[in-house]
Amino acid sequence: MNPLVVEVAATDGAARCGRVLTPRGSYQIPAFMPVGTRGSVKGLDSADLEGLGAEVVLANTYHLMLRPGAEVVAALGGLHRFTGWTGHTLTDSGGFQVHSLRPKVDDDGVTFASVYDGAATRLTPEKAVEIQGLIGADIQMVLDVCASLPATPEVLRLAVDRTTAWAARARAHHDRIEARPEGQALFGIVQGGTDVVLRSESATRTVELEFDGYGIGGLSVGEPRAQMLEALEATVPLLPMDRPRYLMGVGDPVGLLESIALGVDQFDCVAPTRAARHGSMWTSTGRVNLRNAQYARDTGPVDPACPCPTCARWSRGYLRHLLAVGEPTAWRLLSIHNLTFVLGLMGEARSAIASGRLDDLRARTAEIWDR
Amino acid sequence: MNPLVVEVAATDGAARCGRVLTPRGSYQIPAFMPVGTRGSVKGLDSADLEGLGAEVVLANTYHLMLRPGAEVVAALGGLHRFTGWTGHTLTDSGGFQVHSLRPKVDDDGVTFASVYDGAATRLTPEKAVEIQGLIGADIQMVLDVCASLPATPEVLRLAVDRTTAWAARARAHHDRIEARPEGQALFGIVQGGTDVVLRSESATRTVELEFDGYGIGGLSVGEPRAQMLEALEATVPLLPMDRPRYLMGVGDPVGLLESIALGVDQFDCVAPTRAARHGSMWTSTGRVNLRNAQYARDTGPVDPACPCPTCARWSRGYLRHLLAVGEPTAWRLLSIHNLTFVLGLMGEARSAIASGRLDDLRARTAEIWDR
Repeated sequence: MNPLVVEVAATDGAARCGRVLTPRGSYQIPAFMPVGTRGSVKGLDSADLEGLGAEVVLANTYHLMLRPGAEVVAALGGLHRFTGWTGHTLTDSGGFQVHSLRPKVDDDGVTFASVYDGAATRLTPEKAVEIQGLIGADIQMVLDVCASLPATPEVLRLAVDRTTAWAARARAHHDRIEARPEGQALFGIVQGGTDVVLRSESATRTVELEFDGYGIGGLSVGEPRAQMLEALEATVPLLPMDRPRYLMGVGDPVGLLESIALGVDQFDCVAPTRAARHGSMWTSTGRVNLRNAQYARDTGPVDPACPCPTCARWSRGYLRHLLAVGEPTAWRLLSIHNLTFVLGLMGEARSAIASGRLDDLRARTAEIWDR
Repeated sequence: MNPLVVEVAATDGAARCGRVLTPRGSYQIPAFMPVGTRGSVKGLDSADLEGLGAEVVLANTYHLMLRPGAEVVAALGGLHRFTGWTGHTLTDSGGFQVHSLRPKVDDDGVTFASVYDGAATRLTPEKAVEIQGLIGADIQMVLDVCASLPATPEVLRLAVDRTTAWAARARAHHDRIEARPEGQALFGIVQGGTDVVLRSESATRTVELEFDGYGIGGLSVGEPRAQMLEALEATVPLLPMDRPRYLMGVGDPVGLLESIALGVDQFDCVAPTRAARHGSMWTSTGRVNLRNAQYARDTGPVDPACPCPTCARWSRGYLRHLLAVGEPTAWRLLSIHNLTFVLGLMGEARSAIASGRLDDLRARTAEIWDR
């Protein structure tokens, strides 16, 4: 029985809006999932995330398996009780972080050095499933091989073959293990770089394994947006209509809307919060760099059109000051703003799809952000 | 006309509880004032402080005059609008921070190097008044000379003489300047180290200048608590009953209650928040060091008896993890707990004074914290 059911309320071209029904309840799609790397979205707590109206929060297996350790998260009641978050959760497999560490990859798995103490650490598809079972998110992801772009055809081919073989092992192991939440979903991941033929092959082979949802990985890693969208176009139509489609690591306004137009349901990205911590504010009129001296005496809010508590209460001048002197309060207040912006954009996308006006929203957004 | 009116509701020995009526409203005494060094209590925002029930927040003139600059705070509407805080505010004069930098002190003022860029900076009693006028807190403090203890009699004598002379200049200048909030209060500061004769002299001479309230400075700088209390005993009875008495830099539970017993009304200290950021939690059963490995899998709250949002929602194990990996969320959540503890202790002190049971509270607190 499939733990996740996609309930489509409306479509607009390939785009769709609605809900994903889950054992925990449901979350609206298209969805943006804030990233709580080590068990908290940097500077925020789970009450803040409730206030933001976030419905799914991502946590990084790579970090949690090393600190405090998956067994410790399990001993503390699993990811939801650990973080005090009653909404949905998703853990990545650690694959993306591991591959950025230039690990040793073989057919069986991957060996890498811990970022904390350099200790050699081994991850296999089965181990990734077990660890994520202990962490206990609502959704876990298979361990994949994420090739850095640009990559040779041989590298991309090997990444797809290994990802597929590992996906089959993960699927079997996930069905087998007991130390995981009842009804925990498992997503496969489509790879293939920007090679549309390989993307199609990867999609088809991954779908054959019958996952509860599908991640699309290995994109938004530096390639031009047009290439990313081509790869998506070669992938999404091959994914089953009744399963969520999750584009990993995309969070810029135009990238989100263009991907939604191609049928993607959910996203994660550190960009909105990382940008916020550097004073790069996402607003209804585009980017505002709060570090600019022109804002030092600015009594206005970051974005007059924004409903967030930061914009309701504090001035650009104050927030710029906190940022300039390194006060952690700035990171939290500015992250709350940028997440409000991205989550609000998702709400706009849902409304636009429901009323058949997604093209208008895409055009307006591109005009602001691509100029 | 005195901007502050002490309304005593009850006394218990020398201790008193009640309210200080101000142009802004009132605050309850005994009061603990969280320290918002650079315009925010580290990691917290003004909504957090409202949630905590804080009524007065301190800001450091030394930091704000250097970054973003007093004129910038004024341009952004003054300290209250700057920080989005509608409660009371108090600025220190910068004297304490400056003296920790081993500055050049002469009869006219003090020259020190900016901690930000090393630039030579000059502060005089008049300049401190003007800067604090621009920052615009409800209460400002005179620039004082704070001798490091232990100090020779000559050093203490010079510190008292200069502090008194500077206080007279500050008083006159504060009456004269217009660039300050209507009704802004000015507190004198009693010095004299742990020399009870000098303390009495300093108190008498400062009171002659007729301030709106009185700070007691130069204590809790490393001397034994008994010596601090002796110095207080030599000071407080000489201060007028109708003015607030503010012991600067004290925030440990026993120090607070013993000082309250001697008639002190208000306190500030970075200790509760600094301790929190290092995992030293103040609880109803004493100190809990969250960094200890024994708490790694502890599902209980920091303090089962605590009503704060942190204790209501997150476990020792989770908070310990956030702290261990350096997540700024930990600093905020743990600071909220420790401030709840200290502000709660102030509430207990007020109730105890009202019911004539302060001695009981002192005994219980000493048993927990001095063992």
